[in-house]
Amino acid sequence: MDDEGVIKAEWGGVFEGDPQPVAVFGNTDVWFGPQAPAFMTAVLKTPKLEWFQSSAAGVEHPALVMIGQKADLYTTSHAQSEAMAEWALWAAMDFFRGGPKRRADKAAAHWEIQTSREMHGSRWLIYGFGAIGKAVARRVRALGATVTGVRRSGGASDLADAVVTPDAMAEALKMADVVLLCAPHTPETEGMADAAFFAAMRDDALFLNLGRGALVVEPDLIAGLDAGRPSFAQLDVVSEEPLPADNPLWSHPRVMITPHDSAATAETRHRQDQIFLDNLNRWLKGEPLENLIDKSEFENA
Amino acid sequence: MDDEGVIKAEWGGVFEGDPQPVAVFGNTDVWFGPQAPAFMTAVLKTPKLEWFQSSAAGVEHPALVMIGQKADLYTTSHAQSEAMAEWALWAAMDFFRGGPKRRADKAAAHWEIQTSREMHGSRWLIYGFGAIGKAVARRVRALGATVTGVRRSGGASDLADAVVTPDAMAEALKMADVVLLCAPHTPETEGMADAAFFAAMRDDALFLNLGRGALVVEPDLIAGLDAGRPSFAQLDVVSEEPLPADNPLWSHPRVMITPHDSAATAETRHRQDQIFLDNLNRWLKGEPLENLIDKSEFENA
Repeated sequence: MDDEGVIKAEWGGVFEGDPQPVAVFGNTDVWFGPQAPAFMTAVLKTPKLEWFQSSAAGVEHPALVMIGQKADLYTTSHAQSEAMAEWALWAAMDFFRGGPKRRADKAAAHWEIQTSREMHGSRWLIYGFGAIGKAVARRVRALGATVTGVRRSGGASDLADAVVTPDAMAEALKMADVVLLCAPHTPETEGMADAAFFAAMRDDALFLNLGRGALVVEPDLIAGLDAGRPSFAQLDVVSEEPLPADNPLWSHPRVMITPHDSAATAETRHRQDQIFLDNLNRWLKGEPLENLIDKSEFENA
Repeated sequence: MDDEGVIKAEWGGVFEGDPQPVAVFGNTDVWFGPQAPAFMTAVLKTPKLEWFQSSAAGVEHPALVMIGQKADLYTTSHAQSEAMAEWALWAAMDFFRGGPKRRADKAAAHWEIQTSREMHGSRWLIYGFGAIGKAVARRVRALGATVTGVRRSGGASDLADAVVTPDAMAEALKMADVVLLCAPHTPETEGMADAAFFAAMRDDALFLNLGRGALVVEPDLIAGLDAGRPSFAQLDVVSEEPLPADNPLWSHPRVMITPHDSAATAETRHRQDQIFLDNLNRWLKGEPLENLIDKSEFENA
């Protein structure tokens, strides 16, 4: 499908009339590319749709909700977790190494030895212990960090040193060098990172958000940073996207912003394509498909 | 020992006359603190010195050469490798994530999605496969990278996907996303990273130096960066330390400098102290000491 929404076949032909897809892969292009409206119209109009596989992690998108009313929904979102986990690793390493001060020194031709902190031995608190949280835990534990996961069920995990329920957050926040949110936006998580949350953090701790912007009360985050807790924040998601140019998060010296693209790597796309192709192959053979979207997963931290 | 070189006992007394140490731990303070001259004088004057344990990785320091002529030298330098490996991880993650462009976007309140590269699947070429090279390999392979180690002996290692000899460098450079030097300064390694070396690198590759500044022909590095190979360089060691303020490396936009402090973490000191205390304990019990400096190790990449 080109940018005008015209569907072309591989051999150069153009499909006439309404495409009536039976199985659809809503990959990243479909959600973000210029052809998105035409593509979604075709998907919503087809009476034949049996299943739709989405690259998106969340189910908030109105089109996806509508599609879900007439077809089974599958996801490839776990393909994104690997790249998102590397984002967290990047953020933490730059924080532990004092990146901002070091870059200021470099810009000033200033040679001054400073002591770094180590990933090894650092304590991570990961709120939302699904695919993303686990992908982060796998990496940072391999580097010598300890991980406390937070999820409603509270059940133990091989990938965490401890798993606690959300009501234990206040205590857990006191011990964490890095606090990472990677939970979906639900009534329970909305505004969870508020003034009390930040006040419970250490003054040398890093706050990371890979979940949704609505989890954070942004004025409380800014007030917390200015009061010294957390020490620094890196956000891949914010309350309004794109973030308006006059939002004070942009100019805060102890905030780093990335434009909701932590998953954007070539390898993420390859993994997504492969997951869809595996399902397509199963469907053509009449086998049960994998990675059905379980709405309850999105409702639980 | 205080900053004036006066040695005080733990109970508050002061040692009179010349201290004549038998066993000495030359930790980081001794090499870099204000008491260094007094301390070294005491060590060089004592007729009783049996062994000296140094926190330094190299044996170029003139005082250490003199000490080595009258006593056995031991090192705790492997305690530094862990922190140094985290430096390499930091540098690579910032490179793969496009750190400079992202920080410029943040400073300009500019929301623009960009594609990152992944550590997972990246190809590392590590010249000098001793304690540092192995500490790096352990980490990046746990994160899904592949590692080719380079050392004279060329023998295989459990910690590398391949080990080659230095004469295979030109071929190996063509395949590497990250090229890390962590070899000592010897006649063989001096100036090894020259115009031909950089011309053999990929135009999307990162160059890292944790070895010694003398391994790099700095004008060739700058010319290489300006010609597009490597894409970026991060250096913890440079030809002249501290680096003079008018050195062009400071102002180059695709160079990051850290002041030879990649090992400087609180945990490095704890590990060094523990290694010395373990040796002291062995010596008091009459057992053989560990971590003897083997000069041939420093002469081999």
